[in-house]
Amino acid sequence: MRGAVIHAPGDIRLENLDDPKILHPTDAIIRTAVTCVCGSDLWPYRGAEPTDAPHPMGHEYVGFVEEVGSEVTSVKPGQFVVGSFATSDNTCANCRNGFQSHCLNREFMSTCQAEYVRIPNAQGTLVTADGVPGEGFWPGLLAVSDVMGTGWWAADAAEVGSGSTAVVVGDGAVGLCAVIAAKQLGAERIIVMSRHEPRQKLARAFGATDIVTERGDDGVARIKELTGGIGADSVLECVGTAEAMRQALHSARPGGNVGFVGVPHEVALDGQELFFSHVGLRGGPAPVRRYLPDLIDRVLTGAIDPGKVFDLALPLDQVAEGYAAMDERRAIKTLLQP
Amino acid sequence: MRGAVIHAPGDIRLENLDDPKILHPTDAIIRTAVTCVCGSDLWPYRGAEPTDAPHPMGHEYVGFVEEVGSEVTSVKPGQFVVGSFATSDNTCANCRNGFQSHCLNREFMSTCQAEYVRIPNAQGTLVTADGVPGEGFWPGLLAVSDVMGTGWWAADAAEVGSGSTAVVVGDGAVGLCAVIAAKQLGAERIIVMSRHEPRQKLARAFGATDIVTERGDDGVARIKELTGGIGADSVLECVGTAEAMRQALHSARPGGNVGFVGVPHEVALDGQELFFSHVGLRGGPAPVRRYLPDLIDRVLTGAIDPGKVFDLALPLDQVAEGYAAMDERRAIKTLLQP
Repeated sequence: MRGAVIHAPGDIRLENLDDPKILHPTDAIIRTAVTCVCGSDLWPYRGAEPTDAPHPMGHEYVGFVEEVGSEVTSVKPGQFVVGSFATSDNTCANCRNGFQSHCLNREFMSTCQAEYVRIPNAQGTLVTADGVPGEGFWPGLLAVSDVMGTGWWAADAAEVGSGSTAVVVGDGAVGLCAVIAAKQLGAERIIVMSRHEPRQKLARAFGATDIVTERGDDGVARIKELTGGIGADSVLECVGTAEAMRQALHSARPGGNVGFVGVPHEVALDGQELFFSHVGLRGGPAPVRRYLPDLIDRVLTGAIDPGKVFDLALPLDQVAEGYAAMDERRAIKTLLQP
Repeated sequence: MRGAVIHAPGDIRLENLDDPKILHPTDAIIRTAVTCVCGSDLWPYRGAEPTDAPHPMGHEYVGFVEEVGSEVTSVKPGQFVVGSFATSDNTCANCRNGFQSHCLNREFMSTCQAEYVRIPNAQGTLVTADGVPGEGFWPGLLAVSDVMGTGWWAADAAEVGSGSTAVVVGDGAVGLCAVIAAKQLGAERIIVMSRHEPRQKLARAFGATDIVTERGDDGVARIKELTGGIGADSVLECVGTAEAMRQALHSARPGGNVGFVGVPHEVALDGQELFFSHVGLRGGPAPVRRYLPDLIDRVLTGAIDPGKVFDLALPLDQVAEGYAAMDERRAIKTLLQP
């Protein structure tokens, strides 16, 4: 089969690879319907994370079940399935607590920009859509497998509630999906920090009521102006830099909540500052599996359309261009069609 | 009147001071029924916080209203009142959100180890007990004004719920009150980290089910053993040191919560570690005012007896001995009688 392999920063190649095989009785093999490039894939692409040896890439997928291991009974060949970037048995103590992305048997997906993918923990990980959804739904369902699930988690962790004011820090695909989530969870006011006109437009289409273009202290001051001087009830941090986290913490009101879903890179928090802020903080890899049935339903009923974050669709053999377009900010998110 | 003044580390004196006066129409003057020494008073006493010039001490109080300013209508002379260490108008946006300890007009109390005390923001700060409670209730009501309110906040911030497992880090007065709170909020298992036999005994009397005497990594390993390998649902951090915070964060299960109420001293948190732990974190000065009516009721009906944390009662003129006893760990908490 063909699959994407990173060799060095900036060097992504589509190569002929061995077809994945069932290695454990809990595995399944899927034929990829569509896959995509994630913002986090740009860390090694940009050399911000080391690439010691060539390895496959990609952790987002929807597809058709090809084959299942002997212990997998919940899905069968031919079904259309959605899974999370973090696989989970959905039975361990952490899964039962709703933190499937902390499953005691968790394996992170990492080979999904390919025609076929092996899914560990298939029984607990894969969720079937009812029948085979039309191709028009595939981008939305693909978004659910990562960025939409992560945006939802940001809103959940930040405790967005009915009538609340939410701030979204970051206008990447996750940030845009966080706007969708905040809207669905009843936020009355959704303020997005964004400097990119096409992304602002999409944010507004998803439900943003205000755009703040200022950054740093100026950005925080503008948020305070918009929130009666005290800050927002909920802040959804969708970047992962120290600057974004600082902005998020300073934008929340006393007693408000920050949900942080961008993997933090060199972020240090001062205990005393956090203490006196009265801000609640929760983050981590999104427990997408918890939300999958609900989010699949919202996509298939048309309540949400997170597939719109894909503003570039390419055949899988143009994967290198897919990365380059995102790296150069020519695309928000690239869909890849095997 | 007589009141305690700190002159230097280890040097607390009872002195003749001017009687407090109404300075603003929102003030009240109370005659102190009982007051006490707080663990945080030991920071300057031990020289861990500077004492640049002599100043009065104390932020815990219950007493009788002597006089009120022209804008204070909610309490009147002769009434027995309980207040918080952080005064609040109880009308601003932060107060309405339940974070009265972040009131936009907040003033921290600092002159309460004295016969009379001026209470700013009296209208929003003071809560009357129904009639004058018997003297036997005064220690419990005094505890409510700070340590019991703070213990309750720790349990609230850590989201202790019915049937949950809670860990309390710290066996000072706040930690012991946190045990009371966890019990009242329905925790099934309450694990207290303590090395002091008399405090362990009181913790058990308050509802602790397990005592862990190990510290650091050994302490965390023991908590894991007691919680099915994953950690506790809720951890109540009642110390404020880097070591205590580390222990707290490592003792919580993925998706669990840490409420931290010890003022952090040199506590730095790593964003990435917090992220991958999936632990929620909230702290700050306790919004005691939010809990006062409920906690006063629990004390007066006998549901809780946090006054037991006072294991030493002294006349106010022995305030210096009151500090020394706590400093040398001969007392958990010293009650002072004017």
